[in-house]
Amino acid sequence: MIIDSDGEKLIADIFDNELKPGQKDRFRQQIEFILEVDKLKHVLRQTILMDKSRRENSAEHSWHIALTVMILSEYARDAEIDFFRVMKILLIHDLIEIDAGDTYCYDDQGRKDQAAREQLAAERIFNLLPSDQARICRDLWDEFEEKKTPESRFANALDRVQPFLHNYFTRGQTWQENDIKSGQVKTRMQPVDDGAPVLWKYVSALMDDAVNKGFLAE
Amino acid sequence: MIIDSDGEKLIADIFDNELKPGQKDRFRQQIEFILEVDKLKHVLRQTILMDKSRRENSAEHSWHIALTVMILSEYARDAEIDFFRVMKILLIHDLIEIDAGDTYCYDDQGRKDQAAREQLAAERIFNLLPSDQARICRDLWDEFEEKKTPESRFANALDRVQPFLHNYFTRGQTWQENDIKSGQVKTRMQPVDDGAPVLWKYVSALMDDAVNKGFLAE
Repeated sequence: MIIDSDGEKLIADIFDNELKPGQKDRFRQQIEFILEVDKLKHVLRQTILMDKSRRENSAEHSWHIALTVMILSEYARDAEIDFFRVMKILLIHDLIEIDAGDTYCYDDQGRKDQAAREQLAAERIFNLLPSDQARICRDLWDEFEEKKTPESRFANALDRVQPFLHNYFTRGQTWQENDIKSGQVKTRMQPVDDGAPVLWKYVSALMDDAVNKGFLAE
Repeated sequence: MIIDSDGEKLIADIFDNELKPGQKDRFRQQIEFILEVDKLKHVLRQTILMDKSRRENSAEHSWHIALTVMILSEYARDAEIDFFRVMKILLIHDLIEIDAGDTYCYDDQGRKDQAAREQLAAERIFNLLPSDQARICRDLWDEFEEKKTPESRFANALDRVQPFLHNYFTRGQTWQENDIKSGQVKTRMQPVDDGAPVLWKYVSALMDDAVNKGFLAE
């Protein structure tokens, strides 16, 4: 059943006669998933846009870092990795926030039940898809979370670098608003070293500079 | 030179000593490009989000359709295509809108100089990158625009399907606001048939249903 934004059921069976019996449910599940993930555009992150006009949402963030794969792939710690999979990981990595919300990385209270909330979200959201595709997406998300493969480590590095750049180039506005110290940022940025050592050196230099310029408290 | 949102030059040389001579300009160009493309989050499209709360921006749209590659690949007209390239095409296909704006597909006046505006935008934006990457991105964008390869045809199909779904499932609000007729939508949707015949049948069925339900004028 696909319902529209007024809560009314739409396109019940109008397309069914074009598909073979086994395809009907599959196609409907795929469309429902595509409509459902639109909600990620409403999940606001702490990161602000470069012009400071507003907070970024998780769909925009996901686009930005998936694109970044094309630009920064040469800095991955392991050169021979599957960048297509990195990109897929990044496109789906925040979908669980549709249910679980974006947990601010320095919110120690919110992070206590974050894993439990996100597991529930993953169960619901990926299982909107046909089972084979649900499995593929779930595996990609688990891979991202576990940070064990070179692909997931590079994905995690990019996921940390982009908001860091926004923080630095907006003069640490979000850091200051949330009373964040440089030690916290350094810990948070560790996955950058694991996935992309050159980018880690860059981030380290910017962190020092941010402290020197007063964007970030020591 | 990388400037921050207050217009001040930042990180002039703080990272240069970590890189070999030839890498310095390259890295700075890559970071400048990543910061510049943030502006796509400000380019508003005519499409509204599924809950009708606001218009969608082109970064969100790009994320949504790149993700859709993972879900609808089995409906591509040509099964043996490079879906990684389709995804890359979709991630960069709207970057030219940073300068050229989003031209509403039914705006005949705006479409007259659209190609000229977009060519200028492509020149500037892709050339922020190191020349090899600028070439790659430019080629992907040209491929998308020319619609000659199976990859670009599938990319164009997905680029048309997603806003169509938003239109249908918000009961044609944007169609009605802009006084759009079903013949215009049908012409606009032709690339869906070229790239994904099954999706075209679905879109056709929804178009008929939209007319029947009064979402779309005949």
